[in-house]
Amino acid sequence: MWQPVEMLSPRGFLGHVANVGVKDETLDFLLVVSEVPSVAAGVFTRNRFAGPCVDISRAHVAGGVLSALVAVSKNANVALGDIGRRDARAVVDAAARLLEVDHASVAIAATGVIGRRLPVERVTGHLSAMSAAEHKALGPLDLVEAARAIMTTDTVPKAASVGVGNAVVAGIAKGVGMIAPDMATLLAFFFTDAEVSAAALDAMFRRVVGKTFNCLSIDTDTSTSDTALVMANGLAGPVEADALEEALGCVALDLVKQVARDGEGATKLLEVTVEDARDEEQAKRVARLVVDSPLVKTAVHGADPNWGRVAMAVGKAQDDLDIDPERTVIRFAGTEVYPGRVDDVGLARLARSMREDSVSISVSLGCGDASATVWGCDLSAEYVRINADYTT
Amino acid sequence: MWQPVEMLSPRGFLGHVANVGVKDETLDFLLVVSEVPSVAAGVFTRNRFAGPCVDISRAHVAGGVLSALVAVSKNANVALGDIGRRDARAVVDAAARLLEVDHASVAIAATGVIGRRLPVERVTGHLSAMSAAEHKALGPLDLVEAARAIMTTDTVPKAASVGVGNAVVAGIAKGVGMIAPDMATLLAFFFTDAEVSAAALDAMFRRVVGKTFNCLSIDTDTSTSDTALVMANGLAGPVEADALEEALGCVALDLVKQVARDGEGATKLLEVTVEDARDEEQAKRVARLVVDSPLVKTAVHGADPNWGRVAMAVGKAQDDLDIDPERTVIRFAGTEVYPGRVDDVGLARLARSMREDSVSISVSLGCGDASATVWGCDLSAEYVRINADYTT
Repeated sequence: MWQPVEMLSPRGFLGHVANVGVKDETLDFLLVVSEVPSVAAGVFTRNRFAGPCVDISRAHVAGGVLSALVAVSKNANVALGDIGRRDARAVVDAAARLLEVDHASVAIAATGVIGRRLPVERVTGHLSAMSAAEHKALGPLDLVEAARAIMTTDTVPKAASVGVGNAVVAGIAKGVGMIAPDMATLLAFFFTDAEVSAAALDAMFRRVVGKTFNCLSIDTDTSTSDTALVMANGLAGPVEADALEEALGCVALDLVKQVARDGEGATKLLEVTVEDARDEEQAKRVARLVVDSPLVKTAVHGADPNWGRVAMAVGKAQDDLDIDPERTVIRFAGTEVYPGRVDDVGLARLARSMREDSVSISVSLGCGDASATVWGCDLSAEYVRINADYTT
Repeated sequence: MWQPVEMLSPRGFLGHVANVGVKDETLDFLLVVSEVPSVAAGVFTRNRFAGPCVDISRAHVAGGVLSALVAVSKNANVALGDIGRRDARAVVDAAARLLEVDHASVAIAATGVIGRRLPVERVTGHLSAMSAAEHKALGPLDLVEAARAIMTTDTVPKAASVGVGNAVVAGIAKGVGMIAPDMATLLAFFFTDAEVSAAALDAMFRRVVGKTFNCLSIDTDTSTSDTALVMANGLAGPVEADALEEALGCVALDLVKQVARDGEGATKLLEVTVEDARDEEQAKRVARLVVDSPLVKTAVHGADPNWGRVAMAVGKAQDDLDIDPERTVIRFAGTEVYPGRVDDVGLARLARSMREDSVSISVSLGCGDASATVWGCDLSAEYVRINADYTT
């Protein structure tokens, strides 16, 4: 799962990755092109400092059709005012010229440092050079290489794919830091050759993102560049809607877990499920309070079954007057630790199980029958080191 | 300021500190008694897992009069159901017996590990022994020793005092982790010999806490034990209300900065002011987004003037549609870094200034004329080490 062994690719998508010199010598440029216009949908960050790439892609996706996606990594092109807007537009225009498509059918995403100007001529110059080489740089879409091209401090590329009927749903994502839900979270691109209407794709994509990428929280910070896009080119013909949504959900969940495991400095995947909640909104909110608590995250890092901190984090839902300590049940790896008690032998066993690379905590609120799961990771000294040193 | 040189004490307050063996050999017990009944007010955590000490003190303070305060450190007595309630009540009753006052005039607070039973007989036994010694254990209130008696992972005792007219306002606090606003935050006790009505004291105390302890955020986690209490015994006669409120505010702010500086693993005080906001609520909320952002906190730790992360954190106020990147101004230590730019020499100068033990960031929203300041600290690898190792 960590590094997919075999990756199915949907028909009709071409890809190109390169280093164009945005920051260093690593891959920093991705172009994905659909051989025929694709139905498209997208979910974007709601950060008030969202960058111009987000604004452009949101407008272009609103049309429901995309031909290509260009992504730049190692520079977010954010908080640069008119210059940033011009630079983003220049990259889109250069890609549209290369592909001989309308600029409104090209989406763009960027990720990396905020507030530093993109070396835009290197990006547009690269696109012009591709043009001169008559598209020869475009080949079959290699998902893992595509995922590698959008990495910043990610330590591994994140890709997943699944077959559904005659079609394939594939996705790539980058994650690591500045990741919290209530938006599309990070960069995540999905490609499928299934045939689906723009309206149906938009509705199912929002549902899928709501249960996966919007249930992922690494560090409570919300990026200014978060973009989740899906392109469906229809070359494999129609797929039953429920099956397609399930396939999208399956790929998204796989990517979410990969991103959580590779959170900055993370050593463990943390999975928190809240059950018996009043409604799904409450379940998700309380689960997020637990996943986001630095004291829970450090306890998980230390393999310490410190359920008192989980109780504290649940109690932070201070306006949820139906949450009652007398009715709440807390479990670590399926073992009840509150209100039931675990003796020292049991605690030692739990502590051992928490040394594994995945920790699950569940909380039953006794307020209803809704549930939700939120994914995150532990908080390590390495997170501090990475982020105390990263740029400017 | 860090370690007050001379501490004024209000008249008529007696104190006693001891080690009763709650966890180790350090001070873990504090009793403060007013020679005459004191007018009192309190603000408490809103955590749904609030412990029985909070419930008892909230009820007792509601009467507007207190004679004594007993505080236990190194054990929070939280999430223990009926046993915890009985234990808290037993301590209050033992103190009331010792002092020959009504149990409803005794407040109680506890701080420390959650979910482990308090060795209650050691606490009540100590109070009985004091009884046998005919109160001889009570002496003049030593604020610094009192502050030391309520420490958990605090590295220094926190106390402050100021004269106002003929009276003195003094305060002690403990802090370190699990500290976030929207409640009284941590343990903070204020003592004054000023004469004031219960209603006036309650109103001014809520205003003071709102601008000080509720503007303090160490790690976004909200303790189950947070209690802020004030006792005014009137022995110094009446004090002009505005002057008394100012004195309370002055002591509270001093304590808040002491707590922020001594946040778990903290190496720097972080002071974030948001100006030109629509209203104070918006100013405080946005300031808190900046103070709470782990990416801002790690940048501050690394002395990195990474204003892009401040922009990101401001942008997290996603429902504040009046926040506009085109109108926002960000300053580090008074120097505009956005939208104005600082050259490399200027950035290096800012980085040097951030190596000091106090970092100030200000943000002008251009939405109105309200402002607020929130205090916090940097996030260090030491925070992770402390909390990955602390208990169970």
